[in-house]
Amino acid sequence: MSLNSFGHLFRVTTWGESHGPALGATVDGCPPGVAIDEAQIQHWLDRRKPGQSKYTTQRREPDQVRILSGVFEGQTTGTPVQLMIENTDQRSKDYSEIAEKFRPGHADITYWQKYGIRDYRGGGRSSARETAARVAAGGLARAALNALVPGIEIRGYMTQIGPHGIDRDRFDPDQIDANPFWCPDATAAGDWADYLDGLRKSGNSVGAVVEVVARGVPAGLGAPVYGKLDTDLAAAMMSINAVKGVEIGEGMAAATLTGEENADEIFMGNDGRPVYSSNHAGGILGGISTGQDVVVRFAVKPTSSILKPRQTITKSGEAAEIITKGRHDPCVGIRAVPVGEAMMACVILDHLLLHRGQIGENRGSIG
Amino acid sequence: MSLNSFGHLFRVTTWGESHGPALGATVDGCPPGVAIDEAQIQHWLDRRKPGQSKYTTQRREPDQVRILSGVFEGQTTGTPVQLMIENTDQRSKDYSEIAEKFRPGHADITYWQKYGIRDYRGGGRSSARETAARVAAGGLARAALNALVPGIEIRGYMTQIGPHGIDRDRFDPDQIDANPFWCPDATAAGDWADYLDGLRKSGNSVGAVVEVVARGVPAGLGAPVYGKLDTDLAAAMMSINAVKGVEIGEGMAAATLTGEENADEIFMGNDGRPVYSSNHAGGILGGISTGQDVVVRFAVKPTSSILKPRQTITKSGEAAEIITKGRHDPCVGIRAVPVGEAMMACVILDHLLLHRGQIGENRGSIG
Amino acid sequence: MSLNSFGHLFRVTTWGESHGPALGATVDGCPPGVAIDEAQIQHWLDRRKPGQSKYTTQRREPDQVRILSGVFEGQTTGTPVQLMIENTDQRSKDYSEIAEKFRPGHADITYWQKYGIRDYRGGGRSSARETAARVAAGGLARAALNALVPGIEIRGYMTQIGPHGIDRDRFDPDQIDANPFWCPDATAAGDWADYLDGLRKSGNSVGAVVEVVARGVPAGLGAPVYGKLDTDLAAAMMSINAVKGVEIGEGMAAATLTGEENADEIFMGNDGRPVYSSNHAGGILGGISTGQDVVVRFAVKPTSSILKPRQTITKSGEAAEIITKGRHDPCVGIRAVPVGEAMMACVILDHLLLHRGQIGENRGSIG
Amino acid sequence: MSLNSFGHLFRVTTWGESHGPALGATVDGCPPGVAIDEAQIQHWLDRRKPGQSKYTTQRREPDQVRILSGVFEGQTTGTPVQLMIENTDQRSKDYSEIAEKFRPGHADITYWQKYGIRDYRGGGRSSARETAARVAAGGLARAALNALVPGIEIRGYMTQIGPHGIDRDRFDPDQIDANPFWCPDATAAGDWADYLDGLRKSGNSVGAVVEVVARGVPAGLGAPVYGKLDTDLAAAMMSINAVKGVEIGEGMAAATLTGEENADEIFMGNDGRPVYSSNHAGGILGGISTGQDVVVRFAVKPTSSILKPRQTITKSGEAAEIITKGRHDPCVGIRAVPVGEAMMACVILDHLLLHRGQIGENRGSIG
Repeated sequence: MSLNSFGHLFRVTTWGESHGPALGATVDGCPPGVAIDEAQIQHWLDRRKPGQSKYTTQRREPDQVRILSGVFEGQTTGTPVQLMIENTDQRSKDYSEIAEKFRPGHADITYWQKYGIRDYRGGGRSSARETAARVAAGGLARAALNALVPGIEIRGYMTQIGPHGIDRDRFDPDQIDANPFWCPDATAAGDWADYLDGLRKSGNSVGAVVEVVARGVPAGLGAPVYGKLDTDLAAAMMSINAVKGVEIGEGMAAATLTGEENADEIFMGNDGRPVYSSNHAGGILGGISTGQDVVVRFAVKPTSSILKPRQTITKSGEAAEIITKGRHDPCVGIRAVPVGEAMMACVILDHLLLHRGQIGENRGSIG
Repeated sequence: MSLNSFGHLFRVTTWGESHGPALGATVDGCPPGVAIDEAQIQHWLDRRKPGQSKYTTQRREPDQVRILSGVFEGQTTGTPVQLMIENTDQRSKDYSEIAEKFRPGHADITYWQKYGIRDYRGGGRSSARETAARVAAGGLARAALNALVPGIEIRGYMTQIGPHGIDRDRFDPDQIDANPFWCPDATAAGDWADYLDGLRKSGNSVGAVVEVVARGVPAGLGAPVYGKLDTDLAAAMMSINAVKGVEIGEGMAAATLTGEENADEIFMGNDGRPVYSSNHAGGILGGISTGQDVVVRFAVKPTSSILKPRQTITKSGEAAEIITKGRHDPCVGIRAVPVGEAMMACVILDHLLLHRGQIGENRGSIG
Repeated sequence: MSLNSFGHLFRVTTWGESHGPALGATVDGCPPGVAIDEAQIQHWLDRRKPGQSKYTTQRREPDQVRILSGVFEGQTTGTPVQLMIENTDQRSKDYSEIAEKFRPGHADITYWQKYGIRDYRGGGRSSARETAARVAAGGLARAALNALVPGIEIRGYMTQIGPHGIDRDRFDPDQIDANPFWCPDATAAGDWADYLDGLRKSGNSVGAVVEVVARGVPAGLGAPVYGKLDTDLAAAMMSINAVKGVEIGEGMAAATLTGEENADEIFMGNDGRPVYSSNHAGGILGGISTGQDVVVRFAVKPTSSILKPRQTITKSGEAAEIITKGRHDPCVGIRAVPVGEAMMACVILDHLLLHRGQIGENRGSIG
Repeated sequence: MSLNSFGHLFRVTTWGESHGPALGATVDGCPPGVAIDEAQIQHWLDRRKPGQSKYTTQRREPDQVRILSGVFEGQTTGTPVQLMIENTDQRSKDYSEIAEKFRPGHADITYWQKYGIRDYRGGGRSSARETAARVAAGGLARAALNALVPGIEIRGYMTQIGPHGIDRDRFDPDQIDANPFWCPDATAAGDWADYLDGLRKSGNSVGAVVEVVARGVPAGLGAPVYGKLDTDLAAAMMSINAVKGVEIGEGMAAATLTGEENADEIFMGNDGRPVYSSNHAGGILGGISTGQDVVVRFAVKPTSSILKPRQTITKSGEAAEIITKGRHDPCVGIRAVPVGEAMMACVILDHLLLHRGQIGENRGSIG
């Protein structure tokens, strides 16, 4: 299994299994001179940490990060930064049943078919625990972004759980941190709580949609045609466990628009930079950032480890019924919010470095 | 502008501008011994070729491919295959106006900001003509796939134009080639013809949704966690001009499902291989193919070159109104169908080669 | 056969066979705004061109380069630059004998074993003709280097043919272009002429050593630890046909020095930059350029296509004697000089772009 | 500082500084099902470990490796293998003087110029301690090689220290482990002991030549033209600290041979495979393995940390004299032997995986 790395110049390799001794991220290509310490990274990890509400897995992991290399006297040195998180709460006994049976909708069966070796302890490498390493790397990316281009803000939130979407008219950024769902709509958050309580009690789970917005991204980032900013964002988000769809700006709804509707008209802003009448493009044209908000959305499928009985087979090919006990997320999409933010931070930083390397600076002035 | 390549082991680099002397694909990593000639590749190019109906651009390009290297006595040699298409119908004069103005919704402005040099002749590198090179490479990928794993079928079609979707109950594969829209639903195809006629006459354009299915893909392809099969498919499709969303299987609708609904139940098939009760997963679990149909969908935004007047600015920052004359596709999504097929073929072949390289063969037997 | 590309950000993919319709280089990652035309690149190609003296192959190839993409109105646009050279003098009939027999010391046998398809026409992809594409790419790299950091000079020359080395005390840069050997020592050039005349008449060939020096390279280029400047130079030179050894600075002789002797002492120069008492390091310490001359040497083995009879086997495993007729270089090292220069130019440019991407500028000031 | 990875499919990223908490290798792409444990890897690390004789640094590091991921129940799972070595003997105080002065011949000055942040503790990332991570990765590569192609043997030894080379007529493989120099010539080993004693007492150091041979490598490995087996070996060896030259087979001496001398004649062996009359090629033709021994040699420059006073400058640009105290290797080439072996193992394994991925198996049969 190769290809555990992403990024062109800011290159992150994650490693580790759900129930091994540790997991982490080896980050190569972070610029030198970025002020960073473990507490800064821990801040972001704490947002993804399990067990913070009854709506996420009850596994208790402190997810304490250690910086093992690449930082000297409080600054990055330009050498690889090793971010390690030790696993502590590894109750492997919960997984005894699924060592033989494949969970429908889960990577159990494909890992077995591909590798012939299955680390059944909590899903091994296919577990959502892998995303802790992404969040750690994202914390470093945020610090580097801040050092290179102050003012970039990256914010994720949920816009839908099951059939219940937010009302954009009630969008309030201050609500995002005020409920266990990263929901910008207080009313929706209330509805979701009721809805998820019901699901959780019945042993079921549900999908969700996460939106991540990067504000303050300079125009000119993105490397056409196979390293487009949206191409890399799509790959980054699709690589997150359980993601089944990715949208930029209008996304799938772009199919329903006419050219006249879709054209974000252009004007000159007071600061001498172009402004746009709308943002159907999600901040990206021809794979290159426009300077508008970069807007990405992705759908997370429901957790496949559920208490509802489903038909499956065993490794020896026998028919079987499966019920997955354990400490699973009723809506794994909730914890995908900080992960989506982390991926956005890594991709934006990577393209900022690429842009400098290839071009040096924006070349075409307007006005 | 780097990153004009895609693929890990089957590596395609496209080159060329809309109105330069030629464009093409440099394909590195094609296995030796694959029977191929220009006619086979031309077959696929002819499906993408402009000017075949009144619903696509009226530019007349024969899009004749030449194989300049890598093939000897009718077989690939294992060396790079150079596929070149000369441009012949380059009426640059149509583009005189847009040399100074930026088209809203188009890459004009971002290319200018990034590179400071703008090949205004037909969009230069950002033109959909670049996708001809992809289709040529896809033709080679199909031949190689066929040589390595006979029986893989890759088929694309349109499922939506503007607000008008197909009816899945009327899905008839024989219809796909029987109308100018690659539409599997004869009734919808009729509706689309009327709808597009109206749009075209009014100088407007519209978006679309394309679905591509690969049948016969063996289980085990995909390299978790950043080279997942779905990750690479998402990147491949998002890299196509004008694509704004990508879905695998249920796609964005996965958000609305419960875990119970989403779980594709597993049974043993008569041939000793697992079969599934449904395919919400789109043939991919944990980033690895299950052996079911691999199902990808993507949304294409409307062409931004339209006759409807829109507000914009010039390179010198003056406000201006723009109307784009020229020979543009009222629904560029139509010609994206063969492009999506080509990308699917390239990605599947690439992962087949990767899988052999890393693992050699599927290792985990069932039953 | 993958991996026909080199470079990280300035990425060159060569394609084409000795006797196919054409060969060339697809160059991705060239910065925009570099002034370039075909004549500039032709200048460098003409230096490598065969048939310029009796000491190189008598094949007559004009090696005329065409720029098919990436250049608009005399400047690079930042898109891939396709450089194509059509083959014209392809006397395939000369190769009839070697279609069945393997030349000792030649890639014939390994290509056959690996690929099972052998393009016997002039060695196919393993021919030194492939290096024409490198020289074309190197011409573009020189232009880009000149645009980014004026004053970098790259110069190659021969220091040894067979047992006959130059005398460093007679080193005269003006001699390099004054003889058919790129020899900086006029006396040695005379000796070489006599020596090669004898070899050529007897149907034999001989090896050589080429040295390439880059002057004016800024300090700070190189990406420890696996993308060191010397690592990439070693790979670049070793990838040239027939090269069997690569040295940086003292090279293999570094083994004989004590630490005291090897330490290039450091002083402050009048311009506020460090100067060194000597250059045993060849301009590179810890994989990073020091600002001194970057000095690389490589050994080229003798041409394996010779008129001297040698024992070999046929494809069917029969013992055979082989004599290779045809138009071969008695000392292929001669034409390796412009190739070595081209590789140096590409590597230096690549690291210049990488350095800007990762670091932005040199960060540590002295004094 | 990016590019801390090497390998195409067996991809090793090393991380960590000389005096940080730990260092290690993140290994991505190891095939699943390879039997491995910490003891096996420790075996190879112990050969490189410092402090084993008076001829290497007196730093006492147990270099105890821990496997943190990628291995389950004694076998690799196909996921990334994290190999961590904690640093224990970090006497930073020895380095106080060199925090301000640059050691001639050392990476001190270039790291400072490039990064502007200098981890003066033992050279930070430029320290030879980084090679411990390579040896750990090499141990894993050996296990994987053994699982895939039993019978490949990789052996390194020294052939020269300072001006004193071995006598090939006295080459005795059993001697290699019998002296502190990995010297295959017992007489030379005795001479080296005397010679190094003198150097060590005078506070000086000296260079060396290491040769590494891989026996049993199948024909067909290597990916022309920029991923040739010799290209990748040259890069691998040149990336080792202090290496200044790399040779394949005849190496630099190939320059002195005629084509007649250099041609390794080919015969059919009794086992139906080609045999060769000699091995000037070092087991590689056209970048592809022939099946003969793969022979690589590299020169290691003398340690630059010496007690002999040398002229240098400080960070503030003042002239200064420097004497480097501390625990340094009088001949760092000695400990480069296991490192060279490790790099050879990684490169051979990588190309074995690449070969399977691209071709599947050797295709051209002989006889």
